[in-house]
Amino acid sequence: MPGEAELIERIAALVGRASGDLIVGIGDDAAVIRKSARQWWLLSIDSQIENVHFRRAYTPAHLLGHKALAVNLSDIAAMGGVPRFALLSLMLPRNLPSSFIDDMLDGMMALADAHQVVLIGGDVAASGDGLTLTLTIVGECPAGKILRRDGARPGDLIFVTGQLGLAAMGLQLLERGYRYAPHLPPLQRRLILAHLQPVPRLEIGRALAEDQLASAAIDLSDGLSTDLFHICRASDVGAVINSERLPILHPVPDECEGDELERALHGGEDYELLFTVPKERLAAIESLRARFNAFPITLIGEITDQPHHMYLEHQGRLLPLSPRGHDHLRDGEER
Amino acid sequence: MPGEAELIERIAALVGRASGDLIVGIGDDAAVIRKSARQWWLLSIDSQIENVHFRRAYTPAHLLGHKALAVNLSDIAAMGGVPRFALLSLMLPRNLPSSFIDDMLDGMMALADAHQVVLIGGDVAASGDGLTLTLTIVGECPAGKILRRDGARPGDLIFVTGQLGLAAMGLQLLERGYRYAPHLPPLQRRLILAHLQPVPRLEIGRALAEDQLASAAIDLSDGLSTDLFHICRASDVGAVINSERLPILHPVPDECEGDELERALHGGEDYELLFTVPKERLAAIESLRARFNAFPITLIGEITDQPHHMYLEHQGRLLPLSPRGHDHLRDGEER
Repeated sequence: MPGEAELIERIAALVGRASGDLIVGIGDDAAVIRKSARQWWLLSIDSQIENVHFRRAYTPAHLLGHKALAVNLSDIAAMGGVPRFALLSLMLPRNLPSSFIDDMLDGMMALADAHQVVLIGGDVAASGDGLTLTLTIVGECPAGKILRRDGARPGDLIFVTGQLGLAAMGLQLLERGYRYAPHLPPLQRRLILAHLQPVPRLEIGRALAEDQLASAAIDLSDGLSTDLFHICRASDVGAVINSERLPILHPVPDECEGDELERALHGGEDYELLFTVPKERLAAIESLRARFNAFPITLIGEITDQPHHMYLEHQGRLLPLSPRGHDHLRDGEER
Repeated sequence: MPGEAELIERIAALVGRASGDLIVGIGDDAAVIRKSARQWWLLSIDSQIENVHFRRAYTPAHLLGHKALAVNLSDIAAMGGVPRFALLSLMLPRNLPSSFIDDMLDGMMALADAHQVVLIGGDVAASGDGLTLTLTIVGECPAGKILRRDGARPGDLIFVTGQLGLAAMGLQLLERGYRYAPHLPPLQRRLILAHLQPVPRLEIGRALAEDQLASAAIDLSDGLSTDLFHICRASDVGAVINSERLPILHPVPDECEGDELERALHGGEDYELLFTVPKERLAAIESLRARFNAFPITLIGEITDQPHHMYLEHQGRLLPLSPRGHDHLRDGEER
């Protein structure tokens, strides 16, 4: 079977280029269509599939509802838009209790209400096997004020919001038998919630787009190395990341195995924003940090002119960096 | 587990009423949002799930691609809109050959091209089990020119396009071992294609909306009895159907078991349009028939003022008619 990027490219090759009302087609975090001379719509589709994206054993229903919407809102955040409407396709296994469905919908609606997103369409069907939630999000933005993947230029600085690898550690804890509960130790609780209850960075995305601050942006769903590679490919540039600059959490719980640098580079599902900024706009990042109450926005590297080549500057050496984050087709069933 | 209608109502109760940019929310064939003072967008989401909606054993890949898009276009037809854009979420089992994926996408693109629909977004993931295709369609229409489910009034006449029960017979043939092939006898071929390759009635839907001819409309996905009940519920009216008027195919192949009236009343997936017309607009239906080259548009009954009560006029008697078409939750795994 082809990998995810390969298949998306194959689909993209089948369809026409952007034209008329279509501003951005397949290949970015969301498609962009013209609403009017002043406004654009953003559209994105994404699924949460049982035993691929989540396991029911460790996913409370209301957090599943939250996450299914959150990962879609994150695509709108990565485009710098404001989410407005959602459509939900629910595929329900026969044994799913009614109370699970209610809690799941409650969790989804709580997040929707928080962002004034209105659920405007629904489709439900029995599933052949597990539970699947597919959502389409419709967002909005002023014409021209969007973040794309393809605008990074050599010399641009690379930034990331929040901290890296938290969701990967949360997943490790869940796989080791930890369960979400209010009485968990604060660190374990934080990591598990990073995995189960990601926060779409809508306000930061919006600010980056409004001020035309970022030359490129993407949300971290597959992992830093893979998502940075998406930007490099779309923008036809390369990148160097500095390992010492990566925002890594210390200390980590004993239960979290593996190298923390590996986790920061390749761990998926942090749903933070990765974006590039022309050097002359660097000062504006300072005011952005201030505006978001010193929320971590970290300079981690620089865009280069070597198309599709990524490097890690680590302990004085320059190491090749491959996209080894999550591929939703190749790694799908291992999670 | 709750039934489909019950669950959709539960979801609808969670969300706000139409307001602002939202013209029609959950509960019709598509949601409607305002694009501008003159134009509206239509949005709809629908899934084709392996072993629920189709079996791979009897579904050629290119026809599966066609059908996944066609059933979504049918929702736009039922609203009287023009389809413009599509977003596709593909959930792929590991063992699916690359050639199957290519053929499926080719089949989908052929139908998309025929209606100038542009695929603007894609998401692919490994599936936990079978193959699932979820599509969101974005359609367009002049402001106010839509077909809704909730406008039927007592005395309105009930019409249906095409013939009833063909797809149900096609499914019977497939389950009895027939396979789609060009050399099939014409009748068998026609029935099998009615199931595998439904034709969305976009042009008729558009004409009904443009001329403000229909007071209510829906596409026949679940079966006449269930889809008519959707109109009765949304419009708070009742209906009487005349069995002798139903457009039923004669003769049928020997392999098709069961009562032909039952099949016409409750057989699903014909994707014809069911609509109601105020009596004073009856003459306009004649010109509509002429415009569509005598394509069958059949008067089958009348709307009554008994909310949610449906009857079948059959051999001089008035029999209660229950919605016994397909429920995507209750019947899901039996197909």
